[in-house]
Amino acid sequence: MTRFDVLAVGNAIVDIISRCDDQFLIDNSITKAAMNLIDAERAELLYSRMGPALEASGGSAGNTAAGVANFGGRAAYFGKVAEDQLGEIFAHDIRAQGVHYQTESKGTFPPTARSMIFVTEDGERSMNTYLGACVELGPEDVEADVVADAKVTYFEGYLWDPPRAKEAIRECARIAHANGREVSMTLSDSFCVDRYRGEFLDLMRSGTVDIVFANREEALALYETRDFEEALTKIAADCKIAAVTMSEHGAVILRGNERYRVDAIELKELVDTTGAGDLFAAGFLYGYTQDRSLEDCGKLGCLAAGIVIQQIGPRPTVSLADAARETGLI
Amino acid sequence: MTRFDVLAVGNAIVDIISRCDDQFLIDNSITKAAMNLIDAERAELLYSRMGPALEASGGSAGNTAAGVANFGGRAAYFGKVAEDQLGEIFAHDIRAQGVHYQTESKGTFPPTARSMIFVTEDGERSMNTYLGACVELGPEDVEADVVADAKVTYFEGYLWDPPRAKEAIRECARIAHANGREVSMTLSDSFCVDRYRGEFLDLMRSGTVDIVFANREEALALYETRDFEEALTKIAADCKIAAVTMSEHGAVILRGNERYRVDAIELKELVDTTGAGDLFAAGFLYGYTQDRSLEDCGKLGCLAAGIVIQQIGPRPTVSLADAARETGLI
Repeated sequence: MTRFDVLAVGNAIVDIISRCDDQFLIDNSITKAAMNLIDAERAELLYSRMGPALEASGGSAGNTAAGVANFGGRAAYFGKVAEDQLGEIFAHDIRAQGVHYQTESKGTFPPTARSMIFVTEDGERSMNTYLGACVELGPEDVEADVVADAKVTYFEGYLWDPPRAKEAIRECARIAHANGREVSMTLSDSFCVDRYRGEFLDLMRSGTVDIVFANREEALALYETRDFEEALTKIAADCKIAAVTMSEHGAVILRGNERYRVDAIELKELVDTTGAGDLFAAGFLYGYTQDRSLEDCGKLGCLAAGIVIQQIGPRPTVSLADAARETGLI
Repeated sequence: MTRFDVLAVGNAIVDIISRCDDQFLIDNSITKAAMNLIDAERAELLYSRMGPALEASGGSAGNTAAGVANFGGRAAYFGKVAEDQLGEIFAHDIRAQGVHYQTESKGTFPPTARSMIFVTEDGERSMNTYLGACVELGPEDVEADVVADAKVTYFEGYLWDPPRAKEAIRECARIAHANGREVSMTLSDSFCVDRYRGEFLDLMRSGTVDIVFANREEALALYETRDFEEALTKIAADCKIAAVTMSEHGAVILRGNERYRVDAIELKELVDTTGAGDLFAAGFLYGYTQDRSLEDCGKLGCLAAGIVIQQIGPRPTVSLADAARETGLI
């Protein structure tokens, strides 16, 4: 019996969410549907141009940890905030969801990371992330006992952006595998894949990572192809399990020669795609650590993703466990 | 031609919003549907017991100023935040809505006010407000030129809670009337009325306040009666114009012997009543400063209130001007 089902590691971020039109993205050179990395100066400029906003704890892996806990799974999280009000908000929200979170924060500068998320009328989100205190995450933040006692350690590809987080991840992977656990990652964003393609492929091919999450664009970017079937074949060969999401077309799960197609759930209204991939990973990993079939894992992922995109903000405000029970999935 | 339609003065607050059940309110001795004043220690305790939350700029009069601007009116605001991240959020959001906001913030302690708002399944909100930096608002924060150049200066009864804000309000009223402008207030909360009944009645009967906003419970509390008709007759005698809201039963507007009944709008779903009264005042004052009939002012108030209670958070994320145009009100 392990202490945790899923340990998630990522950039600890508070989201600042506002609506805008497509012209705003063009006028401000924001790449639509992507994660745009920005520095403090640009953060200030964009914020001065942003409309009235809502704040919500976010961060890709943070959303996944919160999602696993929301399903009733036992989750832990490593990620760095500063000792400031946004940091308090982040720590409160993830702990209030029942996630183990003890990463030490050190001082007030750099401040807690924030991502200004502009949601356009089509529900698509375009993120502008100032990494702030996330740049300080390093191997000293690895709680070895937590890694050793978590069935799956999951991390976001975004962690290759700050300077030392990858060292923490390699240390986590070493401890996890030494204890017979598994390691999982999300490719995060197709531009992130472009930045770190070689390293991500190494992580997979060396067996450092067992389970890979990607969306269609990320899988295509990883293999620099426009042929989705080619990308699927290659990703299946490069890791033990791959879960590839395809927006409204659901997801496909691959393990060796096995392949499972899962449908997306029906939506009443697409409000805000923020957190879709994170919550797919949450549902999948919740199912996986409960020893569910890969097909059911995919269904749990699609359920959680479908719920989060029908609300504002990256973490479902409803009970995922209740939703899964209602649909007969658990 | 004045520079502003409405100047609003109030406690500058960031809302921290979460859902809970009725038992949580009972277990934590929170008076339901009321504004509970709390100190820093209780704020910390309640936050530790609160579930994952969303943050949104709030404050009763701040919501009204934002609402007036959202309708297309020219709004200004006085209210005190600290030099901290919540203060930056508050200032950004009200300015991003187009409201003039220049109240000076001084230092980081006490921190920016926050209200922990627990929303129960019935959509009712129960607020727990730590006043923080709001206690520092005083007559030195009155921008005399703004008061002199605003058609209506509106303030919240809640301002009687911090120590020196009432001095600022008396100064505002003096300047406003010396310049031929009008002064308006909301009674804010029936418990607030209980705390300051005599002073509120003095403000009305002395002519310091011309236009009074109240909901049913506040009007009853003001005159210590359970007879609503008695309360309406008395409030009409005590001020030039009274606008009394009655939740799903709409509102009644009184001026001398004139009386206008306005219906509430039909709701798809009641989500969160936070901001209902504030947005009623916004719609009413927007219409009033555009020289609309009292009946139309009431309709604009009911429209804005009906919109804000169908979303989470105290400030409409949709365009009130568009909504008013769609319903033919402007």
